[in-house]
Amino acid sequence: MQVELLSVGTELLLGQIVDTNAAYLAGKLSELGVNVYHKTTVGDNAERLAAALRISLGRSDVVFATGGLGPTKDDITAAVVAHVMGVNLVEDQTSAAKIRSFARDRGLTLLDSLLKQAVVPEGAQVVPNPVGTAPGFISTRDGRTAIALPGVPTEMKAMAEQTVLPYLAARAAKEEGAAVILSRTLRLAGIGESQAEAEIGDLIASQTNPTIAPYAKTYEVHLRVTARAASREAAESLIAPVEARIRDRLGSYIYGADEEGLEAVIGGMLRSAGLTLAAAESCTGGLIGHRITNVPGSSDYFLAGLTTYSNDSKTRLLGVPAELIATHGAVSPEVAVAMAEGVRRAVGADVGVSTTGIAGPGGATPTKPLGLVHIGLSDKAGNVSEELRLRGDRVMIKERAAQLALFLLYRGLKAREAGSR
Amino acid sequence: MQVELLSVGTELLLGQIVDTNAAYLAGKLSELGVNVYHKTTVGDNAERLAAALRISLGRSDVVFATGGLGPTKDDITAAVVAHVMGVNLVEDQTSAAKIRSFARDRGLTLLDSLLKQAVVPEGAQVVPNPVGTAPGFISTRDGRTAIALPGVPTEMKAMAEQTVLPYLAARAAKEEGAAVILSRTLRLAGIGESQAEAEIGDLIASQTNPTIAPYAKTYEVHLRVTARAASREAAESLIAPVEARIRDRLGSYIYGADEEGLEAVIGGMLRSAGLTLAAAESCTGGLIGHRITNVPGSSDYFLAGLTTYSNDSKTRLLGVPAELIATHGAVSPEVAVAMAEGVRRAVGADVGVSTTGIAGPGGATPTKPLGLVHIGLSDKAGNVSEELRLRGDRVMIKERAAQLALFLLYRGLKAREAGSR
Repeated sequence: MQVELLSVGTELLLGQIVDTNAAYLAGKLSELGVNVYHKTTVGDNAERLAAALRISLGRSDVVFATGGLGPTKDDITAAVVAHVMGVNLVEDQTSAAKIRSFARDRGLTLLDSLLKQAVVPEGAQVVPNPVGTAPGFISTRDGRTAIALPGVPTEMKAMAEQTVLPYLAARAAKEEGAAVILSRTLRLAGIGESQAEAEIGDLIASQTNPTIAPYAKTYEVHLRVTARAASREAAESLIAPVEARIRDRLGSYIYGADEEGLEAVIGGMLRSAGLTLAAAESCTGGLIGHRITNVPGSSDYFLAGLTTYSNDSKTRLLGVPAELIATHGAVSPEVAVAMAEGVRRAVGADVGVSTTGIAGPGGATPTKPLGLVHIGLSDKAGNVSEELRLRGDRVMIKERAAQLALFLLYRGLKAREAGSR
Repeated sequence: MQVELLSVGTELLLGQIVDTNAAYLAGKLSELGVNVYHKTTVGDNAERLAAALRISLGRSDVVFATGGLGPTKDDITAAVVAHVMGVNLVEDQTSAAKIRSFARDRGLTLLDSLLKQAVVPEGAQVVPNPVGTAPGFISTRDGRTAIALPGVPTEMKAMAEQTVLPYLAARAAKEEGAAVILSRTLRLAGIGESQAEAEIGDLIASQTNPTIAPYAKTYEVHLRVTARAASREAAESLIAPVEARIRDRLGSYIYGADEEGLEAVIGGMLRSAGLTLAAAESCTGGLIGHRITNVPGSSDYFLAGLTTYSNDSKTRLLGVPAELIATHGAVSPEVAVAMAEGVRRAVGADVGVSTTGIAGPGGATPTKPLGLVHIGLSDKAGNVSEELRLRGDRVMIKERAAQLALFLLYRGLKAREAGSR
């Protein structure tokens, strides 16, 4: 069964709002194992909406429209669907009664525009709206189905979850047998998308169920392994051996899976080990502290972050010797290490992590180019530093440096867990 | 001229990411006065992409595609556009040279997949990528134009702003005469969207050219004033009196205009006044420092940020007396003020700003509920604090607290400029 999404609303074409409805529905349909190959947006224009609907009904079994069911003149979805399906519009008595009682309760004069919302294509299944007045509908003719829900996200979601998604799940199960689609996302840091893909290109090419798809995120790479099977258990047992093969090749870059970000993984490791953390940031400006503290409960292990932007503050707050800065420059492995060590001491933390670099656009020199960043890690096992050469604008360099400093911290904690640090 | 948007990427159909690119481009095109009547999304499938491209090129003058220009096998946009336009693919020498030098700088073996990104339809205008390796292109044949940019938002935006939007603006001006649409965005902090709208409801209702539209952003409100006129000057003189009337009503909340964020405005004020800044953060976790240092050149005035997450670090690093914390609690106006004063002293800065609060989900008490935040400001004129009661989840509370602390700092600097502080 093929379903496509049709978002109706001129505001979506003016960029005034982001179409979160379509993303939500796409995610839900994918969980049901329903294929979504197209997503279309048109404005509140009857001719263009009718044309788009004809194209969509011509290539898909179900067109799932959102928007254009409200009380204003702009709301034309029900009328256009009825026209394209070749049926009349009729008033749904239950919805009309609900609108009358809604108006009476609020002392509103019953406006025609309110009642207009109760109109649906003849023969359609009405989709009740538990949180608003406009009903939706499921209209089928000649084996093609048009579904329409209001565009208000809270109404749309409630109606989809209560009526439409169960309808589609039942229909998919009937037409195609009980299929489950399950995805597992492996999260990688410290490696680019093309390098990651090159390492497992043969696996990607040879796999059909599960499939493997790489995604480049702002500062990390995700590998999504997706299986289709008759049950969740069967899907899991298809994914497990493929995940193991990927981990054989790329295990050192994989820090976590699914929804858990690097800062949350690090938080869990610090908590288990009973360790406290402090950050000494220069070029990242506080971003490491911000990300660490986005995790609920981070106050249990994150003691403090010192963003020492000036050379003087590096000396004054972290005890980095002024001579060290004078000799090697603030952007140097020596200063990165002294910062990580200094913040541990200043704060009394078990682990210190640091960044110092040139985020630009100014500050670069022939020997210290834009994007040069040194990151440091200090704990009782000793100090390490790494040199990074990053691309991008100022904010991107900050984001990438923060991510790689967190990844250095992750690896340090991992080595400690393994007893090798 | 009619432009439509085509988003390419299976991840968009699986609901894994929300299509912010399309909303961004729709907004920009609407500012140019270009009509966008359709927006389509297809997956990484050559046949369906080709079909969608044919439909789009059949009804619009320009199809603006994003996504599918990366290095992996999934990235098929260039090949499909060339196929549909009936031209060959050729390697763009400049892009290929850039990729080779990128690989050489990083000691990477030059992967074929990297070089694949340099391939564009024959005869196309290449769109340079200032922040990544994959170029985009503008390919025209028989009066129909296909534009393609990468899907990574930072790359897409940089390329759109530098090359594609100017191209479309020039073409629209040539084809349709010099109708100019000009927008001026007033940026407000410390006020909600509905309150702002209520204050100027009569202006919004009575204005047709320019129009006034309020937008709620993550932690601020924007009022966009948009005029349509024959020239930029004419549009400006339509906007000016309306802006003045809005400023009469809401001036105390308006901190800036257009693209300039609060951190950039503050940076300019600090620089003009020759003042240095330090931040003492607790619940915001480093976000204030991160925002301040997102501004190029901020190292000229931002000396340091101390994220003192534990009580001990507030005492140790900022000199907040332990008794003060014991008496009033860490989340109190007294501690907020002591933090702002303490960080000035610790760092030797002219101005100190601070936050301390309960971002949740844990840590709330009956007298100190979730979302309670105290912010502080200290300079040679004295110390002030403000109590905030914020709603939202942990990250939203952090974002709102950081914004309102920056707004407190802004008002302090403003009062100082006016001689009243």
